[in-house]
Amino acid sequence: MHRLQVELGDRSYPIFIGENLFQKTLLEPYIKGSQVVVVTNETVAPLYLGNLLSRLVDYQYETVVLPDGEKYKNWQTLQLIFDGLLKAECTRKVTLIALGGGVIGDMTGFAAACYQRGVNFIQVPTTLLSQVDSSVGGKTGINHDLGKNMIGAFYQPKSVIIDINTLHTLSARELSAGLAEVIKYGLIADKDFFDWLELNIEQLKNLETESLIKAIEWSCKIKARVVAMDETESGIRATLNLGHTFGHAIETHQGYGNWLHGEAVAAGTVMALEMSMQLGWLSIQDRDRGIKLLAKAGLPVVPPANMKVNDFLKYMRIDKKTLDGQIRLVLLQKIGEAVVTSEFASDILNAILSTNYQQLLDSILTD
Amino acid sequence: MHRLQVELGDRSYPIFIGENLFQKTLLEPYIKGSQVVVVTNETVAPLYLGNLLSRLVDYQYETVVLPDGEKYKNWQTLQLIFDGLLKAECTRKVTLIALGGGVIGDMTGFAAACYQRGVNFIQVPTTLLSQVDSSVGGKTGINHDLGKNMIGAFYQPKSVIIDINTLHTLSARELSAGLAEVIKYGLIADKDFFDWLELNIEQLKNLETESLIKAIEWSCKIKARVVAMDETESGIRATLNLGHTFGHAIETHQGYGNWLHGEAVAAGTVMALEMSMQLGWLSIQDRDRGIKLLAKAGLPVVPPANMKVNDFLKYMRIDKKTLDGQIRLVLLQKIGEAVVTSEFASDILNAILSTNYQQLLDSILTD
Repeated sequence: MHRLQVELGDRSYPIFIGENLFQKTLLEPYIKGSQVVVVTNETVAPLYLGNLLSRLVDYQYETVVLPDGEKYKNWQTLQLIFDGLLKAECTRKVTLIALGGGVIGDMTGFAAACYQRGVNFIQVPTTLLSQVDSSVGGKTGINHDLGKNMIGAFYQPKSVIIDINTLHTLSARELSAGLAEVIKYGLIADKDFFDWLELNIEQLKNLETESLIKAIEWSCKIKARVVAMDETESGIRATLNLGHTFGHAIETHQGYGNWLHGEAVAAGTVMALEMSMQLGWLSIQDRDRGIKLLAKAGLPVVPPANMKVNDFLKYMRIDKKTLDGQIRLVLLQKIGEAVVTSEFASDILNAILSTNYQQLLDSILTD
Repeated sequence: MHRLQVELGDRSYPIFIGENLFQKTLLEPYIKGSQVVVVTNETVAPLYLGNLLSRLVDYQYETVVLPDGEKYKNWQTLQLIFDGLLKAECTRKVTLIALGGGVIGDMTGFAAACYQRGVNFIQVPTTLLSQVDSSVGGKTGINHDLGKNMIGAFYQPKSVIIDINTLHTLSARELSAGLAEVIKYGLIADKDFFDWLELNIEQLKNLETESLIKAIEWSCKIKARVVAMDETESGIRATLNLGHTFGHAIETHQGYGNWLHGEAVAAGTVMALEMSMQLGWLSIQDRDRGIKLLAKAGLPVVPPANMKVNDFLKYMRIDKKTLDGQIRLVLLQKIGEAVVTSEFASDILNAILSTNYQQLLDSILTD
């Protein structure tokens, strides 16, 4: 078992990574009172809920099982958690456990942030995407019809338990969606990691234990470092959103859940790579390395054909990174180095939004 | 103009108290960006919104006007604030201004806490209750069908502007409700203040400027001191809830808005006074002084006749102060000194919940 620490003063917490980590000894130190509520969804519950509950027999526990999917990441579903907590007469000492992917983690964390103005919670992420990204760093929240993650809180868990065995029940599509965020870490922060990923992408797709643990640990280390420097995203943390401004526009426009978050991020990352190249920062070779790795990971690298320039702009203007009307983007100076900037001509952005990415992809693949 | 400071490190903020305080020079230092959204309700808007907006002409401002009343302090109404923010394409630099009573302040503060995971807000409380209590200290939130203020956040404003002129449009009933919290400060923390209130209660009911400013400043000073010691209510802050555990049960049972918060607190405070006396802590004389002052302030000092012991217990068990099933109450050692305790026999609590308060009141008034 590997252990990392997210350093945030009195809100610091550990991340455990390994196999068979649903263990009493890992859970108990992070449960404050006698009440535990496990929040999960209809897909995950039959797979892992029984195992987790068998470690909680010493507690007064309840479960809340939500419908599965990004389209349920809204107030109505969040309300089901509050209903469960209140019906079980949970006090401020209750501990919530999020068992599931990013949607479950984000909603459970937000419920923990708001219930009686704040109770403890533990993240037990069961998808690759949530293991390398959303379970670490304390971003919680729900979507609004007009924008993704618009309602939420920065609220840190007490611990994160990453059991890679849960990945064996993940669909290939979900696994690829997680790899989009893994590749992102290489692109924005660590060229060595990117190089390693190019060599190990097949092993990861094949769920080889050693490679998986290494990729997850490397990703979480980068994320923990960035979050420790900038918890509430006033600076460097925004670089973690490479591809996300374009990606959120894709997710929102297509309707939550039709494009997986990781898929939208992948297509958005291609747009950011192209823009970084057009600005003269990234070489054509490095742009192509990025696009090829995303494609090899099984990800869409072409934005949806039905989205026009104005469809993107409409959603990008209310992105959380936008300040005083200025769209800000995460772009690459080179592989392993990202910047957040609004200093680009609107012409370039328009060109990027109207590029024919299918044509670009074809030209790269026939090189 | 009087100025107090709530000392909370980098989240410290000023409270301004006086007449005619809707001034550009008081607002501008606490507005971060170019966007301002004023949240108010249908009652307050025609009275004070125009005046406030006339000080905001240098900003891009929007208004959100909510229906008036505690029964609207719920997610559906909160959603109207988020809708307004998103339709106006507000970014993280927006500043919200809460113009109204406690419901507006609590909901606007919670919206500020959650919108894009946190934006700035300013409190401009227009009722006595919100001026002396809810606008100071950063408790924000909404009600749930099963409990008051169950969903919320600790989130501090950037400043609080208390213009006592707004009290001249308040109904006598609302004014009395505010006095319940003013009297509370004397009872829990400052015997001199309680003595002063006994002598000045008529001046306060008559809205005499000097007395009002003195009572508000004294109340805010006590609250600011307590909040600075214990922002998230892990200890002493809970004493501010004298009468509130009984009071919340009354509010929830009667249906939000049928009993005003201050009215329910007054009746709850009578129950706490009686219990403190029964426990041998408070003299009969001091109990009677408390009850008489509340009655003189125009407040109900008899709990609703339709509430039985189990009606109280049902709601008290899920009160936020309850820990691991133990009901905790704020009680008085003497006037000016409160304790939070769960160390009392359930017999005594049952006796308190079944006391005939009308009879008690009659006996006191005929003394």
